[in-house]
Amino acid sequence: MSNTPEAAPISRRAFLGRIGALSGAAVMYQAMSTLGFAAESSYRAPIDLSGAPRGTSVLVLGAGLAGLVAAYELSRAGYTVKVLEYNQRAGGRCWTIRGGDEFTELGGFRQKCEFDEGLYFNPGPWRIPYHHYGVLDYARRLKVPLQSLNQINDNAWVHSTKAFGGKPQRYRHVRSDFKGHVAELLAKSVNQGGLDTALDVEDREKMLEAMRTWGILDKDYRYVASRAVDGSRGYGVPPGGGLMPKPELSTPLDPKALLQSGLWKNLVTDHDYEMGQAMFQPVGGMDRIADALYREVRQHVQFGAKVVGIDQDDRGVSVSWVDAAKGGTPKVATADWCLCTIPLSILSQIPMRVGDAMQSAINAAAPYVASTKIGLQFKRRFWEEDDRIYGGISYTDLPIGVISYPMEGQNLPGKGVLLGGYAFGPNSYTFASLDPQQRVREAVRLGAQIHPQYEKEFENGVSVAWHRMPYTLGCFAPWPGDTREKHYENLCRIDGRIALAGEHASRLPAWQEGAVLSSLDAIGRMHARITSTGEKKNG
Amino acid sequence: MSNTPEAAPISRRAFLGRIGALSGAAVMYQAMSTLGFAAESSYRAPIDLSGAPRGTSVLVLGAGLAGLVAAYELSRAGYTVKVLEYNQRAGGRCWTIRGGDEFTELGGFRQKCEFDEGLYFNPGPWRIPYHHYGVLDYARRLKVPLQSLNQINDNAWVHSTKAFGGKPQRYRHVRSDFKGHVAELLAKSVNQGGLDTALDVEDREKMLEAMRTWGILDKDYRYVASRAVDGSRGYGVPPGGGLMPKPELSTPLDPKALLQSGLWKNLVTDHDYEMGQAMFQPVGGMDRIADALYREVRQHVQFGAKVVGIDQDDRGVSVSWVDAAKGGTPKVATADWCLCTIPLSILSQIPMRVGDAMQSAINAAAPYVASTKIGLQFKRRFWEEDDRIYGGISYTDLPIGVISYPMEGQNLPGKGVLLGGYAFGPNSYTFASLDPQQRVREAVRLGAQIHPQYEKEFENGVSVAWHRMPYTLGCFAPWPGDTREKHYENLCRIDGRIALAGEHASRLPAWQEGAVLSSLDAIGRMHARITSTGEKKNG
Repeated sequence: MSNTPEAAPISRRAFLGRIGALSGAAVMYQAMSTLGFAAESSYRAPIDLSGAPRGTSVLVLGAGLAGLVAAYELSRAGYTVKVLEYNQRAGGRCWTIRGGDEFTELGGFRQKCEFDEGLYFNPGPWRIPYHHYGVLDYARRLKVPLQSLNQINDNAWVHSTKAFGGKPQRYRHVRSDFKGHVAELLAKSVNQGGLDTALDVEDREKMLEAMRTWGILDKDYRYVASRAVDGSRGYGVPPGGGLMPKPELSTPLDPKALLQSGLWKNLVTDHDYEMGQAMFQPVGGMDRIADALYREVRQHVQFGAKVVGIDQDDRGVSVSWVDAAKGGTPKVATADWCLCTIPLSILSQIPMRVGDAMQSAINAAAPYVASTKIGLQFKRRFWEEDDRIYGGISYTDLPIGVISYPMEGQNLPGKGVLLGGYAFGPNSYTFASLDPQQRVREAVRLGAQIHPQYEKEFENGVSVAWHRMPYTLGCFAPWPGDTREKHYENLCRIDGRIALAGEHASRLPAWQEGAVLSSLDAIGRMHARITSTGEKKNG
Repeated sequence: MSNTPEAAPISRRAFLGRIGALSGAAVMYQAMSTLGFAAESSYRAPIDLSGAPRGTSVLVLGAGLAGLVAAYELSRAGYTVKVLEYNQRAGGRCWTIRGGDEFTELGGFRQKCEFDEGLYFNPGPWRIPYHHYGVLDYARRLKVPLQSLNQINDNAWVHSTKAFGGKPQRYRHVRSDFKGHVAELLAKSVNQGGLDTALDVEDREKMLEAMRTWGILDKDYRYVASRAVDGSRGYGVPPGGGLMPKPELSTPLDPKALLQSGLWKNLVTDHDYEMGQAMFQPVGGMDRIADALYREVRQHVQFGAKVVGIDQDDRGVSVSWVDAAKGGTPKVATADWCLCTIPLSILSQIPMRVGDAMQSAINAAAPYVASTKIGLQFKRRFWEEDDRIYGGISYTDLPIGVISYPMEGQNLPGKGVLLGGYAFGPNSYTFASLDPQQRVREAVRLGAQIHPQYEKEFENGVSVAWHRMPYTLGCFAPWPGDTREKHYENLCRIDGRIALAGEHASRLPAWQEGAVLSSLDAIGRMHARITSTGEKKNG
């Protein structure tokens, strides 16, 4: 088999030039948009795969987002597409669990979700940042309704078992008081001449003004209880109407205790590009995206197909697969080209005829990162009714890591489902060592340190330990040390008639956007190769 | 007439004790909740006005939120309620303008809104913070669907005509770079020993760790271009999929230019209790709240009634009113009690039989603050498609002040309506000196400095100059100097048989929550007085 060399990394401009030469202005514009060149007016038009030779076939392995996007675009462009998918559903990690859903993990643990009608839980991706243009574009084109998702909630809790006697603190208190403390110290330093070499006179004056405004300092540049400070951190007794009692000031946290608590570490999401506003989720569950794509390509998809071997020669690819449930004699699917989106944790175990470079890249990625997510249904929405937390996330140093509150049904009576834990690494292994119902009970036991209402209001739960899901064996590739940069291009280059796609073949690991962009990039290069060599139907 | 003295300001606990003695545990719990005593599990139960004497009548003046809430609760409790409203609609400042709506301002300017079907604009209140329990409770009880409103959008613009050559900057750039600059300076000061007296050794170490984490400093405590910094402020070339060009670093803003620009002033909304997350709006327009209340009391409401005199004696109140459009001979409405929610800007012009204390308070509040809001319809949602701004606010030092982006229809094709300007004070007078269509054109001309697409995509617009609306003559009371504290209790105390309510009779001026809480507080006191004196039907 051949391992066709591709161009070495080239400059963005050269890359665009090459695409322009190959494919004309439309593709050029599309590429520019995708690369963020055309201002930020990017990604309005679908990828242009015009000129597909009649009858050219592409076999897509995996019906997660990468596979679905490829199947959708290739079939629209006129390619003959066939998709093999291990599961009995499309979407892969883009998955939503609802009442009645059943699934089995490695080792045989079987769960049946007991959620009430209308409630759900996204065990995989759950957030779409505003700059994930690819995912947003498919939502737009396929008319998937989106709603806002609050990443940050000022009124949510930040919690450390080692600080403030284990008492959760309000996010807004930690944020305002940390900032006030920083501003007070910096103002002090400026006033004492400590920064005279770093700042000229003009800047020193402006910095003092900035610290007073931004840090809410008093006239002596101190961060102390005041109406202005309460306008930021919230009131002791809030202002009311009529002759309701007068407002009373709140008391800022002790600066030393706050500094030593480390709770300020939770403020980073305030300033995180990936977690910033605006953030979206599909109304009704993340799988609405996968479902919308699947509806467009369902006639091409074979469910329950476990790939056991991938072969190729100069004329095409042939893939052996067995019934995922029953096994039996392998069947063989053939095509001119293959886009393989199987996670590397699985692919590294499948015999595959590719060059050493791609095979080494595949092997370097395994095993995947462990991750466990737990969804909990409660009788009532006490986090809204009692704690006034609508959406967003509470952070804790307990093994559950976070509690995230639903965006659906806010301010209405009724039940709700929380993300009751999102554990990585060692915490994930600890959770996964328990049976699914023990995991749920442990999440309830731990979460009750933040929400005492847990014990009384809990109804049922479900957990997904990703490293025990047979079709991914983990959450995403860790690529230890510099292995990612060493292998990345070898992983992404087309090997003969086989290209790889998926979040693993992107620089946005663990995000759906990585899957979408890698898929578009791979099929774009595949299409360019097919059309530039004038290839017609194989055989 | 009598000016019944009420208790002087009392402590919150004493206040609760008094309510407890008067009204039993249910009201006690309700009061505790309202005052934020019962943890934050406040405001689940409706106000309890049980024991209303049969046939006791209350005349409510004004059908804004305060009047509607009072009419709703009083009629549910068994009182005989009549509401007089100047406009031909309920809601007052809780108002939504849609295509086809017409209105006239003082001076005769008449506007007809030309928005397309389904588009709207809230010229008055547009945001419901998560801690406005009263408004949220009515939304919940009356089943008004809410949706999230983004106050902060990381990708929105902050703009100063006097900085960066007038070029708008991304909110996330200003926020990250300002923070990084502050962290670098504070770390420098700590490292140079400048804060050795303010921080002990342990705190100095922790503060350095905090500055490195929170400020995203390098190992030498510098804020410089890096992958980590781009993870906060956003990328030069973003990470892509497959063999898309490699990410490139962005370039932080010049620290001196940023400091001198004053753009950091726009970061205060990041830390503002009133503007914090979670924030809501009713789906379809703010007036959904007023409509829901109005539906419950419509049989009691007289529209088009302009109050021209308010009288009272020991036995009841009598209010003279004329047809708001035609004038003519005054009619008289009588009742045992009166809740007057007419804005003080209007009420100060109406002859009214109350004591000097209340009359002085009423007079002290006028005139109201000027405010002008402008709604603009565009052919396409270029702020999303080109600029990737979904909801939230851009800030500018231009007279328009802000541009706010709609939450409806995000990520879908089609038209949209922006809040194209929200001017206060002198800027508001400048806008209001123009005719409505000139105001709209001026907002388009100014806004084009931030969104050049304005000129091409603009379709139509509408403006509301609140100080020219005959039923409010402004936005809210400024209460210059210490006049508010001087007069506040005199304004709120029941005078004979008359109580005042509305945002002006609250410590939450200009917010709907102030109107709701003041109304509940006033009718609660009125009810307590009625039931404690054993009063039966008057006359």
